[in-house]
Amino acid sequence: MALSKRVFTAKNNVMAICEDSTALAKIVIDRCRKLASLTERPGTITRTFLSAPMRQCHEEISRWLEPLGATVKIDAAGNLRALYPAREPDAPRLLIGSHLDTVPDGGAFDGALGVAIGVALIEALRGERLPFAVEIVGFSEEEGVRFGVPFIGSRALIGTLDEALVECKDANGVSVRAAIDGFGLNASEIPAAKLEGDIVGYLEFHIEQGPVLEKLGLPLASVEAIAGQSRLEITFRGSTNHAGTTPMHLRRDALAGAAEWIGVVEREGRATPGLVATVGAINATPGATNVIAGEARVSLDVRHRDDAVRARGAASLVREAEQIASRRDLRVDHKTHLSQSATPMDGFLVEQIDEAIRKTGSRPHRMTSGAGHDAMILAQQVPAAMIFLRTPGGISHSPEESILQQDVAKALETGAHVLGQLASRTTQRRVERA
Amino acid sequence: MALSKRVFTAKNNVMAICEDSTALAKIVIDRCRKLASLTERPGTITRTFLSAPMRQCHEEISRWLEPLGATVKIDAAGNLRALYPAREPDAPRLLIGSHLDTVPDGGAFDGALGVAIGVALIEALRGERLPFAVEIVGFSEEEGVRFGVPFIGSRALIGTLDEALVECKDANGVSVRAAIDGFGLNASEIPAAKLEGDIVGYLEFHIEQGPVLEKLGLPLASVEAIAGQSRLEITFRGSTNHAGTTPMHLRRDALAGAAEWIGVVEREGRATPGLVATVGAINATPGATNVIAGEARVSLDVRHRDDAVRARGAASLVREAEQIASRRDLRVDHKTHLSQSATPMDGFLVEQIDEAIRKTGSRPHRMTSGAGHDAMILAQQVPAAMIFLRTPGGISHSPEESILQQDVAKALETGAHVLGQLASRTTQRRVERA
Repeated sequence: MALSKRVFTAKNNVMAICEDSTALAKIVIDRCRKLASLTERPGTITRTFLSAPMRQCHEEISRWLEPLGATVKIDAAGNLRALYPAREPDAPRLLIGSHLDTVPDGGAFDGALGVAIGVALIEALRGERLPFAVEIVGFSEEEGVRFGVPFIGSRALIGTLDEALVECKDANGVSVRAAIDGFGLNASEIPAAKLEGDIVGYLEFHIEQGPVLEKLGLPLASVEAIAGQSRLEITFRGSTNHAGTTPMHLRRDALAGAAEWIGVVEREGRATPGLVATVGAINATPGATNVIAGEARVSLDVRHRDDAVRARGAASLVREAEQIASRRDLRVDHKTHLSQSATPMDGFLVEQIDEAIRKTGSRPHRMTSGAGHDAMILAQQVPAAMIFLRTPGGISHSPEESILQQDVAKALETGAHVLGQLASRTTQRRVERA
Repeated sequence: MALSKRVFTAKNNVMAICEDSTALAKIVIDRCRKLASLTERPGTITRTFLSAPMRQCHEEISRWLEPLGATVKIDAAGNLRALYPAREPDAPRLLIGSHLDTVPDGGAFDGALGVAIGVALIEALRGERLPFAVEIVGFSEEEGVRFGVPFIGSRALIGTLDEALVECKDANGVSVRAAIDGFGLNASEIPAAKLEGDIVGYLEFHIEQGPVLEKLGLPLASVEAIAGQSRLEITFRGSTNHAGTTPMHLRRDALAGAAEWIGVVEREGRATPGLVATVGAINATPGATNVIAGEARVSLDVRHRDDAVRARGAASLVREAEQIASRRDLRVDHKTHLSQSATPMDGFLVEQIDEAIRKTGSRPHRMTSGAGHDAMILAQQVPAAMIFLRTPGGISHSPEESILQQDVAKALETGAHVLGQLASRTTQRRVERA
């Protein structure tokens, strides 16, 4: 690859976005495809926490980074951490990263793209040093597949990968600790994986995994918050009865009650701006064609960037379920399985991203992420922000997952601008301090 | 037991309903409880086609019938057939019966009650012969549990227990034929089980298995038709998507579409007199809390005594599904698994039952049976009718199934009146012929 111009001048100002961002985007995509070939199950893209292909993945990324002057190591939680030094030794550090694990039979870009873009941004520096170090992080675990617990990698960076989590076991009875030790790492060194020193922030490029940007015709968005999430289980109970011998007006049909409520969930979601409310799972028993269902159990997933709106939405839906049950002579109960607060992204970083997107000639757009990401974990301790890339068809967690080269190019340009903006600000701050 | 008066005079007129019908009802209920103790699984009432307890059941019923002057045999389809002879040798024959098999963990009265009432009616004759023979039939199989095919017993009586059915296998790979031969019967003699000669009709006493009579405060009803039945499977298809990242207005939620349609099914059932329409089974995939369902498959069961009304109802519901799918940008398809015509009961016999019920001091009430019964099969070849007994709580197919002694007494009185009415009519006809 050849960049026609240097992205950063010695004065850390962005002179021009590299004219070859499209070519660099091609390299990024090729690298994601290469990582996708490192899989536990040939014919699929499946790479879970500290699996054998994860080691190959680390080796592959090291081959990209080491020639650029970065020092690569694998921390005790299995995260790839590559330090590209700053101009001066005691400088702060900017983190750029995403996760290297996948869901079973997943896609090539969910996670890997954020790491590959980070690497490409270092590449675009062509050896130029910034007033801050850049650490590329490839998180070992974000999807929660192997142990049913997500964010194992990013938890280690903020010191919340605690004893209880380390003892979690996978389907084969192997604990996180045993997996770490079996990979040749040392679980007792997990505390050393924790972030130390002056951190400028954490940037994560990630596919949107939804249809919004495609519908808007935009390549990129900044993420201003990661939505809070409530997960509930609602059970309607009526009377199991013969579908042939029980007249309509004498029924206590739990499934009919649940169906009415699913309609309410959808209307409530539509009526409340920014709210998403979903019934994704349903189970009616006994579940026979000729038997009126005596019980219907449904899931509820409610998300919003504003915790108060989300809590009101969930509470209102529970009340509606109770009213439906009361009108239909059913009983209803609910369990709350999860109530997770929203995580705002760092306001300053979001502004920097918007400014950078504008410089690339695109219209900035702010979104709430409906899905959880490593940035949500990092945000507990450092300024964090995300850049979403348009996801064709909104399709992710699927081998059909794809990305447009032109959007990756825009993301690279945006990243370069953000680096430039942060660099000039850091220089400014140092000048002020001096 | 002692009946204070003879039910029938030598002239075949009913003199009086036995004053001891309540005591006889107690015997009937005790006998049902005795049969319930003959089970494949101790602690439950489970007696399937030609199981070991079915042999004990035959022996028990024989002990009741033989002292009354009836000749008991087991036909090649495993049906118990007991002939109580007529006054004269070439007389026609009235069948009274029901089934002796149960669902797994079923109740004591579904089926058995109809046989026990038949036996008690013979008993009430106290040796008196009628102008027709009375054949008590205890069908070997009605529920369809062991082979997935119902009505094995009654099919034999009308000659439709054919080769294909005889080769059906149960879960252990045992065919109907092997079960028959293994029970000590001879499957090659099945054709001889077919009804021959002059049949007055078939009467079946059966619990209602629904809540209608209880709600009306009536002990009995005549059944004027057995409802026709349509069974369909409807599949809505949309897009599987992330519940957090897909805004409400960009969803193609198959489960939300199915839920809307379940509401339509219920409204259509309520709006059409006599129609019952049920969605009892639903399956949404992938079926995860945080994933919008890309597919929802639901069952539909529609029944009505009028085939045209049923067909219009089913067709209209399919159209509604298509309209819902079209509005929601879903696809939908349907399969019809069953479309069974309604079976009218014999008009003359239904009138006789109504008249008899009136004589007992109760208000006659005509019903459509929503469930299938042996009478539906017999009706293909002989005049058939049913008498339903009130079912407390509408509960059947359950150990909780029960019956009121006073209702059994009313049923016995009704049966005695019907016998008397038919006897005097048969005598009349003979006189006319002579």
